[in-house]
Amino acid sequence: MLSFSVIDPAIDTALREDLGAGDVTTEAIISSRARGIARAIAKQPLVVCGGDVFARVFNKVDAGLRVERRAAEGSRAEPGDVLWIVEGRTASILSGERTALNFAQRMSGVATLAARYVAAVPAGMPLTIVDTRKTTPGLRAFDRYAVRTGGARNHRNDLGAMVLVKDNHVAAAGGVRAAIELVRARASHALRVEVEVTSLAELDEALDAGVDVVMLDNFRPEEVAVAVGRAKGRAIVEVSGGVTLERVPDLARLGVDVVSVGALTHSASSADISLELERLG
Amino acid sequence: MLSFSVIDPAIDTALREDLGAGDVTTEAIISSRARGIARAIAKQPLVVCGGDVFARVFNKVDAGLRVERRAAEGSRAEPGDVLWIVEGRTASILSGERTALNFAQRMSGVATLAARYVAAVPAGMPLTIVDTRKTTPGLRAFDRYAVRTGGARNHRNDLGAMVLVKDNHVAAAGGVRAAIELVRARASHALRVEVEVTSLAELDEALDAGVDVVMLDNFRPEEVAVAVGRAKGRAIVEVSGGVTLERVPDLARLGVDVVSVGALTHSASSADISLELERLG
Amino acid sequence: MLSFSVIDPAIDTALREDLGAGDVTTEAIISSRARGIARAIAKQPLVVCGGDVFARVFNKVDAGLRVERRAAEGSRAEPGDVLWIVEGRTASILSGERTALNFAQRMSGVATLAARYVAAVPAGMPLTIVDTRKTTPGLRAFDRYAVRTGGARNHRNDLGAMVLVKDNHVAAAGGVRAAIELVRARASHALRVEVEVTSLAELDEALDAGVDVVMLDNFRPEEVAVAVGRAKGRAIVEVSGGVTLERVPDLARLGVDVVSVGALTHSASSADISLELERLG
Amino acid sequence: MLSFSVIDPAIDTALREDLGAGDVTTEAIISSRARGIARAIAKQPLVVCGGDVFARVFNKVDAGLRVERRAAEGSRAEPGDVLWIVEGRTASILSGERTALNFAQRMSGVATLAARYVAAVPAGMPLTIVDTRKTTPGLRAFDRYAVRTGGARNHRNDLGAMVLVKDNHVAAAGGVRAAIELVRARASHALRVEVEVTSLAELDEALDAGVDVVMLDNFRPEEVAVAVGRAKGRAIVEVSGGVTLERVPDLARLGVDVVSVGALTHSASSADISLELERLG
Amino acid sequence: MLSFSVIDPAIDTALREDLGAGDVTTEAIISSRARGIARAIAKQPLVVCGGDVFARVFNKVDAGLRVERRAAEGSRAEPGDVLWIVEGRTASILSGERTALNFAQRMSGVATLAARYVAAVPAGMPLTIVDTRKTTPGLRAFDRYAVRTGGARNHRNDLGAMVLVKDNHVAAAGGVRAAIELVRARASHALRVEVEVTSLAELDEALDAGVDVVMLDNFRPEEVAVAVGRAKGRAIVEVSGGVTLERVPDLARLGVDVVSVGALTHSASSADISLELERLG
Amino acid sequence: MLSFSVIDPAIDTALREDLGAGDVTTEAIISSRARGIARAIAKQPLVVCGGDVFARVFNKVDAGLRVERRAAEGSRAEPGDVLWIVEGRTASILSGERTALNFAQRMSGVATLAARYVAAVPAGMPLTIVDTRKTTPGLRAFDRYAVRTGGARNHRNDLGAMVLVKDNHVAAAGGVRAAIELVRARASHALRVEVEVTSLAELDEALDAGVDVVMLDNFRPEEVAVAVGRAKGRAIVEVSGGVTLERVPDLARLGVDVVSVGALTHSASSADISLELERLG
Repeated sequence: MLSFSVIDPAIDTALREDLGAGDVTTEAIISSRARGIARAIAKQPLVVCGGDVFARVFNKVDAGLRVERRAAEGSRAEPGDVLWIVEGRTASILSGERTALNFAQRMSGVATLAARYVAAVPAGMPLTIVDTRKTTPGLRAFDRYAVRTGGARNHRNDLGAMVLVKDNHVAAAGGVRAAIELVRARASHALRVEVEVTSLAELDEALDAGVDVVMLDNFRPEEVAVAVGRAKGRAIVEVSGGVTLERVPDLARLGVDVVSVGALTHSASSADISLELERLG
Repeated sequence: MLSFSVIDPAIDTALREDLGAGDVTTEAIISSRARGIARAIAKQPLVVCGGDVFARVFNKVDAGLRVERRAAEGSRAEPGDVLWIVEGRTASILSGERTALNFAQRMSGVATLAARYVAAVPAGMPLTIVDTRKTTPGLRAFDRYAVRTGGARNHRNDLGAMVLVKDNHVAAAGGVRAAIELVRARASHALRVEVEVTSLAELDEALDAGVDVVMLDNFRPEEVAVAVGRAKGRAIVEVSGGVTLERVPDLARLGVDVVSVGALTHSASSADISLELERLG
Repeated sequence: MLSFSVIDPAIDTALREDLGAGDVTTEAIISSRARGIARAIAKQPLVVCGGDVFARVFNKVDAGLRVERRAAEGSRAEPGDVLWIVEGRTASILSGERTALNFAQRMSGVATLAARYVAAVPAGMPLTIVDTRKTTPGLRAFDRYAVRTGGARNHRNDLGAMVLVKDNHVAAAGGVRAAIELVRARASHALRVEVEVTSLAELDEALDAGVDVVMLDNFRPEEVAVAVGRAKGRAIVEVSGGVTLERVPDLARLGVDVVSVGALTHSASSADISLELERLG
Repeated sequence: MLSFSVIDPAIDTALREDLGAGDVTTEAIISSRARGIARAIAKQPLVVCGGDVFARVFNKVDAGLRVERRAAEGSRAEPGDVLWIVEGRTASILSGERTALNFAQRMSGVATLAARYVAAVPAGMPLTIVDTRKTTPGLRAFDRYAVRTGGARNHRNDLGAMVLVKDNHVAAAGGVRAAIELVRARASHALRVEVEVTSLAELDEALDAGVDVVMLDNFRPEEVAVAVGRAKGRAIVEVSGGVTLERVPDLARLGVDVVSVGALTHSASSADISLELERLG
Repeated sequence: MLSFSVIDPAIDTALREDLGAGDVTTEAIISSRARGIARAIAKQPLVVCGGDVFARVFNKVDAGLRVERRAAEGSRAEPGDVLWIVEGRTASILSGERTALNFAQRMSGVATLAARYVAAVPAGMPLTIVDTRKTTPGLRAFDRYAVRTGGARNHRNDLGAMVLVKDNHVAAAGGVRAAIELVRARASHALRVEVEVTSLAELDEALDAGVDVVMLDNFRPEEVAVAVGRAKGRAIVEVSGGVTLERVPDLARLGVDVVSVGALTHSASSADISLELERLG
Repeated sequence: MLSFSVIDPAIDTALREDLGAGDVTTEAIISSRARGIARAIAKQPLVVCGGDVFARVFNKVDAGLRVERRAAEGSRAEPGDVLWIVEGRTASILSGERTALNFAQRMSGVATLAARYVAAVPAGMPLTIVDTRKTTPGLRAFDRYAVRTGGARNHRNDLGAMVLVKDNHVAAAGGVRAAIELVRARASHALRVEVEVTSLAELDEALDAGVDVVMLDNFRPEEVAVAVGRAKGRAIVEVSGGVTLERVPDLARLGVDVVSVGALTHSASSADISLELERLG
């Protein structure tokens, strides 16, 4: 569950973007006394995500709207399934519709893509799919929640939640070993240490330095296999960088522990969900 | 150009998401005296977008960083082209890199997709490609700017910037004519009036009521042709709803004036741009 | 109705301005157990506006306060009429009083002035009174809502909600026609196009270019008459700039469609409303 | 001088209100390379106020704009006088114009009205004109600064900056004396204590209790004279409530020390200032 | 009572600091259906403060949590006393625990220290203990409320709530008398005037000028006694600057009216309060 | 270095707290043309911290103020040492003084306390002192930076930056092993896993489960020694909970790796720093 303090700023901003100048059409046409019921319906197979946010948007538009969840977060929906139901003043439902859907479609889109990556891991293989920090500016908490809802996991949340030594850090320090020594001397004991390695030699250096995670950068499949063998029992092996759905099974079979996929959040398509309104009495 | 008051809230939020807890790796390894120069390089063909935002992010991280634009907004870049150059404290460049790229890749991704839609319009045909309100929550100004940068245009910005009478409004009013009468009686003279019509009969009703724009909802191609003929000289004809790249040429040939494409902003993939750092002295 | 996301920032800011350092008098004198009932009473003839905001202010001060609306938004009140009633903790009522009234008096003041302009239009004449963008910084949504509540209408909300070509734009483009061509080539089909014209020659140019609205700048009455005649059926005619109440009937008789009045929002006096407290048992 | 931390929130909000969706007209017509110079010119006699805010608005729109002050804060300007000059990108000047003027016209309007009240005090008489807390929500610091710029002074800033015992407090405490005792027992020694009195009997009670300021509520002129006599040397005498310009001289002659005027901020008209643009080469 | 508009920004910021990236431990281990009850228990003798804030934090995490107050604000608690009880979803209680306690422990710490200073005043002596503006950035309203809750009082809230002429002001004006004359000519009648004096000569000058409060800066005890004698009936005497608990009785006996203590807010230790969770069925 | 996006919100809020209503004293007395130079001087031995924040506060008050750093962050200062120098408009220096010092004194206070704990570790012993999440609400980034500046290190930043299984989590899961299994199944591979253990049996369970860090809760010294022996080479050993300066050497000698000290941030006293102003010409 996401706390209001975390999600409200984005929701308020989004509503101001769309409703700051009022809803001129609805105000002209819809009586403020008219009441309706609207159903959010899946128009494609998807993983349901964003029910709390969907409800919060409508409650910000009009505290009198009631939202009922019909589908659990993370469950799969087929076209035609009812996900959520909003009931109350028709004008308020129409005014909040686009903003509520913008959040929910995006979150369900990310969850659905994450679930596809997870499903691409051959049965019984322990490969974990994780996201990256390539999230939508301002929506990191939403994106990461959607990734989890889709069954994948999160990588570090931010630059302060893990030490991740990349090529530029290695170069600046003068080598993997030197970089790790600086980290040991200064960084928090609470943080895992991951190192991006570009060769088997760097991998060995990282393993000898006792890092928690190694990230293989542009290793060919046969090198990945060697790396996995050397790292076994010593460090978690992560592969990153442009991994497509098609490559997932092979990486799983090579024994990789973790694959991080930027596309989960930077290139997911919104899921198709529509809101169908029925007017009451 | 986007004013600071409009873009800073999103930039500040994004930097707090990523840097709020510091950059533990860089702080441990990179000397605060080290200086570097980093080049943002296109890794795919793309339409350049977001240079101002890219620069602003780095200036928020460290007012001493200098950013030079090498590629004009809206220009086309090929893989390997240098888009922007950042120079200054190496630690600051590394700490701002991900946030600056998250904005720029997203904006260039939207601009690139918009340009593809525009390019799909056969030469000499006056079809205009526009976006929708299906933008990223909190980033509407960025998304719309990217659409324009890609050569497409914007639809209404928000619920107060145009009257757009949709099926639910028509149903509530008791018909297209009744809806338009309510609008005429109450809405601003400054706003265009668009009506979503679901049949040729409704189209005629809208045209007779003198609306500015008609949106054809789920019309078959032959109906579109008839609609275009009837609307000629009386109203702008817009087609909306799940229009793919492939359908664009046909819609252009049918004489449609405007096609609105939600995918421009809700389903664009980030463009691939990387930041390559070179250390100075 | 204004959504919370739109009105809360201004309400929170206003309460912090007044209550950020506490209410030292009330805290010293009024028991936190004392309960009271307070009536907001019109002290002058006015158009009622701001009930939702008045209530929201008190609810932000103390969620236990209950506010009852006795007068409908947009209705006319005479001196002595009770508009709204607040009941609950006396201390909270006193602490919120000034902020709640500051909003409500201002909003009712704008609505009342707007209603006076509307009433100045001779019966049966179709002249529309509208506001301008000369609103109070930070309170545009409140000002515009008050204008509508007073029976007038809104002009464009912001610089993105309509194309309005002013003298400087015309000069920069090299003439009305050239300006309109640039607009046609770049602006959204969703937006009306208005041009400010300074002569009958420019008017003709604008009408020939097919603009939606013409704004007559400093036309003498006889010129206005000619302009109205030429524009009939081709464009909406708006008169702007220092229009006083006294000039409204004449402009209406000349056949002008719209008069925009900056004074509605930049120079309205607050309506006189007082809050009268009665203590309970 | 107002610090950026105090004025920026209102300026940013106002710019987002007007420019959040871009300036479609200027973007379509004005080249981003065009440069201009614009002069803010008084169109009525006024007291100059808001130069810093005027400049800050333009700098937020475009950091490259330069603003020169030609008229000192608080100085008097006649129609035609140049107050401030903005130079830089023409498009940025046009996009910021309305917001900059909305602030400056409002501030100069308040300063001008304040100066009129101050000027109504007969020469050599020590009557002080002050404002009230009836300020524009969100703009208290701006309103109060304008009052000072016009030569009047401020009353308390907020509910925590002075003890002001009003009729409801007196009634709750069971009398003026009892109210003051509660205040003495609980309130800060840093705060002046003012009491609103409704009769000469209450005045005596307040003076005996040693309050710093007495506010006469609805006293007839002859009662005011008596009150002033009794309070001389013991407390400051303030008159409040619907004081018009015309009543100021009489109140001054009666020996009143302070008159507080809500109209200074709740009912000032904006001063007429226009921005005249000249294009450069 | 502190209004939501005043306390919510700090609470929201604090929750985003701690929960912005989620509570990974609780999400992994605690079922979202598990319910619990948690008791906030004093682990040291303390003055209870912050119940409203404690409750608001939990309600922001999860609107379904219910908080019951067992100890009144300002009451004394002994180790083992239950202060407040939270009931609801266990996961939400655990996620909000640290933030709620960070506020409540800090507020109770300040209240407890304030109460110790107040208790150090010998019985029957009228010395008042007050705070200073040396508060925690962002938490001034919380700190001052805690000071009052502990039985002490507040000094001025901010630089606009009182005139306090310090040594630098005196030097700039060219003496105490000159400084006061400038103040009289410009400052609000609503504000008390305090002057910091560094010698008996300056004290006399201040008293002759009729200031409300004199602050003795680094006076030796025998000088304090003289100063008190001279000021009696003419001005309040305040002593400030590094006053320890031990010095309070002596200052009281010397007849000082007010002692201001920066340590109340800049150096209070958090009170020890723990939250003990019991799981429900 | 802390980026502006991270520190500005707290700085802006603090300045609004103190300067929102202006600085009435300075405005009345100090000419806006007067210029001065002020030196921030240590009044006690301290570890210097907060120079960037000190400078930023003054630049927010007046962009024309120049701040020079005389003492490096983390360096030790003795009474009388000049830390920073501010030069510019005297009025601006006086208006920003309190807010700048409130930040700098607090930050230097935390750094100084952290340095004392670090100094308490016997020479050559590898015990690390770290902070906790018991930071000041709204100032976590400032507090943690100050801890690092004092030579100690940070524990996890927030609830999303590490898995820390506490007693309530263990109880809910039904034991240490079960809790760790849930964590392994759900949490990010990027996060270290720490478990709070209350007995040697739980310690063994945690070590067997392969956790990264064990936190010993209320272990007697002899138990700590046993725990350290068992954990050697398998997990980091942390001691937490009420550790005083006096206990640090013993814990170091027992071989503990990390001691976390809440007092560093929840109970540090502000360091004594004063700003001494010299007026220029």
